[in-house]
Amino acid sequence: MRRIVFILVAVAMVAGVVAFTAPASGHADGEAAPIYGITIPAGYRDWKLIAVDNLLVEGKVNQLRAQLGNDIAIKAFKEGRVPFPDGAIIAAIHWTRVSSEDNNKVLAGPFPGAQSFVVGSPVNVQFMVKDSKKYAATGGWGFADFTGGKPGDKALHQTCFACHTPAKDRDYVFTRYTP
Amino acid sequence: MRRIVFILVAVAMVAGVVAFTAPASGHADGEAAPIYGITIPAGYRDWKLIAVDNLLVEGKVNQLRAQLGNDIAIKAFKEGRVPFPDGAIIAAIHWTRVSSEDNNKVLAGPFPGAQSFVVGSPVNVQFMVKDSKKYAATGGWGFADFTGGKPGDKALHQTCFACHTPAKDRDYVFTRYTP
Repeated sequence: MRRIVFILVAVAMVAGVVAFTAPASGHADGEAAPIYGITIPAGYRDWKLIAVDNLLVEGKVNQLRAQLGNDIAIKAFKEGRVPFPDGAIIAAIHWTRVSSEDNNKVLAGPFPGAQSFVVGSPVNVQFMVKDSKKYAATGGWGFADFTGGKPGDKALHQTCFACHTPAKDRDYVFTRYTP
Repeated sequence: MRRIVFILVAVAMVAGVVAFTAPASGHADGEAAPIYGITIPAGYRDWKLIAVDNLLVEGKVNQLRAQLGNDIAIKAFKEGRVPFPDGAIIAAIHWTRVSSEDNNKVLAGPFPGAQSFVVGSPVNVQFMVKDSKKYAATGGWGFADFTGGKPGDKALHQTCFACHTPAKDRDYVFTRYTP
């Protein structure tokens, strides 16, 4: 069983890497993710920045990522408040990391060997929605994963909470706010 | 002369990598950058996200970066409008890219070889401020670079515009908006 969970988690982590369809838009999407019933929150792309990161699996996955938060989430992050209050939403946007030939040309003269990597294609976007009553069974968080604006399936969404459990002491949130 | 400019550009690009002092704060700073007279804009850390990137010089520099824009800049980016209107400000925040042991422990089970890189220390923060009259000699942009809240010196700021010239057809802005 543990092995199956791990495999499902692995699937969740690379979800959408293969399918580069339309970018996830900033407007609300009608189709809800399974289990948690979450749709893409309107205007999430204009939320404030929590942090950025890079996920690498040599030869397989290389992503640049940004986490954004709505005002409730950002306020809690800044105050170091856990658990997050109801209404907090965190968005995690994942893109491929690609070499920028344009930037490298500029860098080549003064800085031999310098490499610039920028955002390529959108991969997927994930949301954590805090509702301590509705999602009491999963730490008060609902989870959703969208690729090209379409939610992943039930099996994918069954992996979310298990994967976030190691961050229980930070209310299941891996990302730390970066000043 | 060209070589000197290149060296200065190189210096500008790694500025602040060595000195990890206090993080640049989101509030206005009293000390203005030379040449352009720009202070740290109040609240810039809460501006909207333009894009993220990664700058790598093997063995020397490895940065995760985010570009944020004020409302005027974000509107212009979304509309694909160049030149940017007066009042547009772009902030480029640079941090070191460091391995996340916490995240790697979570990834290790399901995903051998997966590596998570997160933001480490702040390096520097740079601003481009559009004022077509005040900064007419430099494409309508004023430039500023701060490390630990303190502006870099005059020599550093003399490199900014030359380095941005290859992006003249995009109004001297390298970063592209990422939906």
